[in-house]
Amino acid sequence: MFTRKLFYGWKDEYQKDVRYGLKGKKLFEQKSKIQKITIFESKRYGKALLLDNCWMTAEKQEKQYHECLVHPALSSAEELNNVLIIGGGDGGSARECLKYRELKQLKLIEIDKDVIEISRKYLSGIGNNCWSDPRLNIQIDDGIAWVKQVKDNSFDAIIIDGSDPKGPAKGLFNKEFFHNCKRILKSKGVFAAQTESPEAFERTHIESVKVIREVFKNADPLYGNVPIYPSGWWSWTFASESSRRYLNPIIARSNQISKTCEFWSPRWQKGSFDAIPAHLERKLKS
Amino acid sequence: MFTRKLFYGWKDEYQKDVRYGLKGKKLFEQKSKIQKITIFESKRYGKALLLDNCWMTAEKQEKQYHECLVHPALSSAEELNNVLIIGGGDGGSARECLKYRELKQLKLIEIDKDVIEISRKYLSGIGNNCWSDPRLNIQIDDGIAWVKQVKDNSFDAIIIDGSDPKGPAKGLFNKEFFHNCKRILKSKGVFAAQTESPEAFERTHIESVKVIREVFKNADPLYGNVPIYPSGWWSWTFASESSRRYLNPIIARSNQISKTCEFWSPRWQKGSFDAIPAHLERKLKS
Repeated sequence: MFTRKLFYGWKDEYQKDVRYGLKGKKLFEQKSKIQKITIFESKRYGKALLLDNCWMTAEKQEKQYHECLVHPALSSAEELNNVLIIGGGDGGSARECLKYRELKQLKLIEIDKDVIEISRKYLSGIGNNCWSDPRLNIQIDDGIAWVKQVKDNSFDAIIIDGSDPKGPAKGLFNKEFFHNCKRILKSKGVFAAQTESPEAFERTHIESVKVIREVFKNADPLYGNVPIYPSGWWSWTFASESSRRYLNPIIARSNQISKTCEFWSPRWQKGSFDAIPAHLERKLKS
Repeated sequence: MFTRKLFYGWKDEYQKDVRYGLKGKKLFEQKSKIQKITIFESKRYGKALLLDNCWMTAEKQEKQYHECLVHPALSSAEELNNVLIIGGGDGGSARECLKYRELKQLKLIEIDKDVIEISRKYLSGIGNNCWSDPRLNIQIDDGIAWVKQVKDNSFDAIIIDGSDPKGPAKGLFNKEFFHNCKRILKSKGVFAAQTESPEAFERTHIESVKVIREVFKNADPLYGNVPIYPSGWWSWTFASESSRRYLNPIIARSNQISKTCEFWSPRWQKGSFDAIPAHLERKLKS
C-alpha cells in the first residue's frame, strides 16, 4: 500500500538566545504586502499561525490570549453599543466580543487582508461564527491612521490586538495612537491592549504601561500565560478615563460569559491584576 | 592573537512535541548514581542545571521558582524552629528559607550528593551563603524513605523541592508520602510542594492537588511563571491542617522578606492564589 509521506519537523521562534518550537509540518506560506504568513500544523496545538516567523496563535492555544484580552474590557464597559478591534485578523477577539448579546456593532480594522483570508480558510475554528455575524464590520486599513479620523466618543470599548512592536504594529505602542484611542472612547468605556511579555520583552512592557498611564487617568496591567509566546508569560493593560471600572466585571455579563470561558473568570481576573511580580511593581512606580 | 574558540549551540528540553531551548555551551556533564547532571552556560540566563535533559534551574531564572515555593509557607507557619526541605540540592530553597532570622534549624534531605557538589561548584550564586550557614544541616538520603522514620510533629514547615514525577522523584507525588509529611508537620505548620505545570502536565498537576487535598484538611494551588520549565506556567500547592493560614503572610515576616524578593510579595501571592484558570477550577471541584 502506498501512503503519503508526512514530513514532520520543528518550527521554532527565536528571541534573544531562546527558542520555542513545535513539532509538525508547514501547510502554507506566502508573503503578503505586509509580512510573511505561515500556517503550521503542530502535533500538540493543532494548526497555528506565524507572522514573520513568530507564533501568533494556534487552534488549541488561543483562548488563554483572546479571553484574557477581551473580557476584562467588555464585562466592565458601561455600554456595548459600539466596540472596536484593531488587529485581530484571526477572528479570536471578535468571537469573544460577539458572545455579548448586548453588543450591537463590532468594527474590526485589520491592516493585512491576507491574514483574515488565510485565517478563515485554515483556522476557521478560531473566528468560528464571527465571520457571518451581522454585527461584525470588517475594514482593511491601517488602524493607526484610521483612528485619527474617527469622531470623539464613538466607542464603548477598544481592543488592540496587534503583534510585537516592530513593522506594521510599531505605531500601536506610541503615545499619539493611545491619545487617539482615548479621544474616540467614551469616558465610561474601556481600552484594552496586549502589552507584551513582562519577561521576554520587559522593557517594552514597562514602557507601554507607563505611556498608557500618561494618557489615561486609570490604567493597570494584568498578567497571564500564553505558552506559545516568548517566555510564556504575557500581559494585557486595561484603561478607562472615569474610574478603574475594568477591575469589576458587571455581574449579569460575567454570569453570561463565564460558562463559555476556559481561562477567564471573575476570580482569575481579580487574581491576575494582583499577580504582578515585585520587581515590576517597583519599576512601574518609579 | 590566539583566542580560545567557544562552541555555542542550542540545548533543548523536549516535552510532548514542544521544545524549549537556550543558546550557549555545555560546561560539564556526568552521570551520577541517580541521573545525568549537566551544567550549561546559557547566553540569556547564565549557568543552568539540567537533570536528565530537563531544565532545573538557571542563575538568572531561579528566583521566580524558589521565592514562590518558599515564602507562602515560611511567611505564614506559626513558628520557624525546624524547617525541612526535601530535594532542593541547588541550594535556592535553602537560601530563601535562611532569610528568616527566626528560623533556627533547616534540614535538607537530598538524594543525590553530586547535585549538591556540582551546584556548589558551578551555581554558587544560587545557594549563595546557605552552604556555610550553621543553621543548615544537609543529609544525603532518599526523602521518601527518610520521612517514614521521623517523629510526629517535628517540623514547622516542609518544602518539597523535587523534579518531575518520574525516576527518583516519582514517590514525592504519592499519597503515602504526603501522609508522612502531614504526620511530621505541626498542625499550625505549612506544607509546600511544587505541583508541576497546569498546562504541560495538566493531569499530574490536578492529581497532585487532589491527593494533597485528600490528605490535608486545607490545601490550595498557586500559579506562577518559570519560563525555562515546560510551558513556562507553573504551580505550587500549600497545605495546613489547622486552617488556610498560608493565604495570609504574617506581616512582620513579610516586611522583613519583601524587600529582598524580586517576584514574591504579599500582593503577588494573593493574586497568584486567585489566578486559577476557569477550566482548572472546574476540574479541581469535580
